[in-house]
Amino acid sequence: MRKEDISLDEKKKFTRLEAGFKDMETRLKELEREFQQTQSQMLTNDMTIVVFSGEMDKLMTAFVLATGAAAMEINVTMFFTFWGLSALKKDVQYDGKKFSEKMLTLMMPSGPGSTKLSNFHMLGGGKKFLEYLMKKKNIQSLSQCITMAQDVGVKMIACQMTMDLMGIKPEELLDGVEFGGAATCIGNATRSKINFFI
Amino acid sequence: MRKEDISLDEKKKFTRLEAGFKDMETRLKELEREFQQTQSQMLTNDMTIVVFSGEMDKLMTAFVLATGAAAMEINVTMFFTFWGLSALKKDVQYDGKKFSEKMLTLMMPSGPGSTKLSNFHMLGGGKKFLEYLMKKKNIQSLSQCITMAQDVGVKMIACQMTMDLMGIKPEELLDGVEFGGAATCIGNATRSKINFFI
Amino acid sequence: MRKEDISLDEKKKFTRLEAGFKDMETRLKELEREFQQTQSQMLTNDMTIVVFSGEMDKLMTAFVLATGAAAMEINVTMFFTFWGLSALKKDVQYDGKKFSEKMLTLMMPSGPGSTKLSNFHMLGGGKKFLEYLMKKKNIQSLSQCITMAQDVGVKMIACQMTMDLMGIKPEELLDGVEFGGAATCIGNATRSKINFFI
Repeated sequence: MRKEDISLDEKKKFTRLEAGFKDMETRLKELEREFQQTQSQMLTNDMTIVVFSGEMDKLMTAFVLATGAAAMEINVTMFFTFWGLSALKKDVQYDGKKFSEKMLTLMMPSGPGSTKLSNFHMLGGGKKFLEYLMKKKNIQSLSQCITMAQDVGVKMIACQMTMDLMGIKPEELLDGVEFGGAATCIGNATRSKINFFI
Repeated sequence: MRKEDISLDEKKKFTRLEAGFKDMETRLKELEREFQQTQSQMLTNDMTIVVFSGEMDKLMTAFVLATGAAAMEINVTMFFTFWGLSALKKDVQYDGKKFSEKMLTLMMPSGPGSTKLSNFHMLGGGKKFLEYLMKKKNIQSLSQCITMAQDVGVKMIACQMTMDLMGIKPEELLDGVEFGGAATCIGNATRSKINFFI
Repeated sequence: MRKEDISLDEKKKFTRLEAGFKDMETRLKELEREFQQTQSQMLTNDMTIVVFSGEMDKLMTAFVLATGAAAMEINVTMFFTFWGLSALKKDVQYDGKKFSEKMLTLMMPSGPGSTKLSNFHMLGGGKKFLEYLMKKKNIQSLSQCITMAQDVGVKMIACQMTMDLMGIKPEELLDGVEFGGAATCIGNATRSKINFFI
């Protein structure tokens, strides 16, 4: 083999390597792009709880899950709709409401203290009994659970449609509560790893 | 340094680069393969709602969430099981049913119009009151919600086991409703970013 | 062009290629690292069901979903809290309990056989009717569903807070049941593709 042939051979090799390199660079760029896109669609470490029910035991469970998750560095959003809104009431107002709204205000639980159990009503006896047990066993009451959830940064959103339907005013709800519609709720849930309907 | 040495040195460098290149190509290929696999396991922008309950307020909430999500370009599947099937009834049939099936037909709500509230029954008074409020506030009735959900492309699947158990015939359900079992429901939920049991 | 120039030109090309190669290697390494991180955050093929309700129809649905998912190679964990714990009772004990715990034991369903329906109570008539239908249609009873779920490897965790609150002893629950708190439940749900609250 002559010297020129060797040189030619090496040149060919080099050109091939250069071409292979360019091809690989294109593939890497494409993979980086796709990967970034995928990452933007990844679920974040969030939890969304739609709180529909207004019974004391269900609300308690919702708040225990929310507070527990927040303690595990999960961003928790609770969306309160229909009877769930009872949990957020701090105050009951009758002034300036229409007759139908006054009627609803009268009928709905006027805050965490007047919610019922989903089982064992027994004219309220079951609930008092459970509360007595909870006190004895040092388990927090519903009101304490709500305060604690707010303290650890659980975000609470009241459903505007429900507020409108039932004539609930923003002033009647706890301070720090935000307001939003179904779109807010679904937007949160789309990013969340955990979604519950309670 | 002699000329031959330089040449030898460069050859070595080139060989090293070539080897490094091959190694990198293998890693890139492996990453591309793993990435594709990961992408196929990614959750799609889907929502699956298992509708177990047959109460008017829960059904309304299910349909508001479903329609809202569909408006946000989310593919929504509602899987109706047990009492949830009431929402899909368009017609009540007694002909050709066994006695036990006739009895169940009589006991179950005969469509969205005859569903109850989960709270405030008051012999149906609570529901009439809520419907009156909804009308006044221009909020859609349950029947309108169902029609709208169908219009925006929400997929509705009736649970076959429930239909079999309760003797519900396909003709009794709304047009466009599909039929499926637990596997269909779970398969959908596995791909969905949002899952709710209502 | 002189021979030396060609050689110089090639050397430059080579050096550029070498530099480009190093740059690409860094990007590939970074992508591999990020990808691994992403994969560790990916949801696994898991399902977590929080079983809060103790009604026979809801429990049945929970077990049908759990068993169906397990059959599709999904790792299923059921977390039983509040009234849901009724499903796991194999035995009722009164010995060694305080008066308040005895009272709760008496009030709670003493196992899958004594659960109620969420609708159609009719003094228990509705449930008997449904069980009669299920038998006729060869659909498994709740007890059979539970056994089957255990057979296919569904993991069952009893909520310790509920057990403590209601004075339920480990011996009263089915063999193979594990015990855990909210953190266990949330940890499971964070990894699961499907989460339900029933």
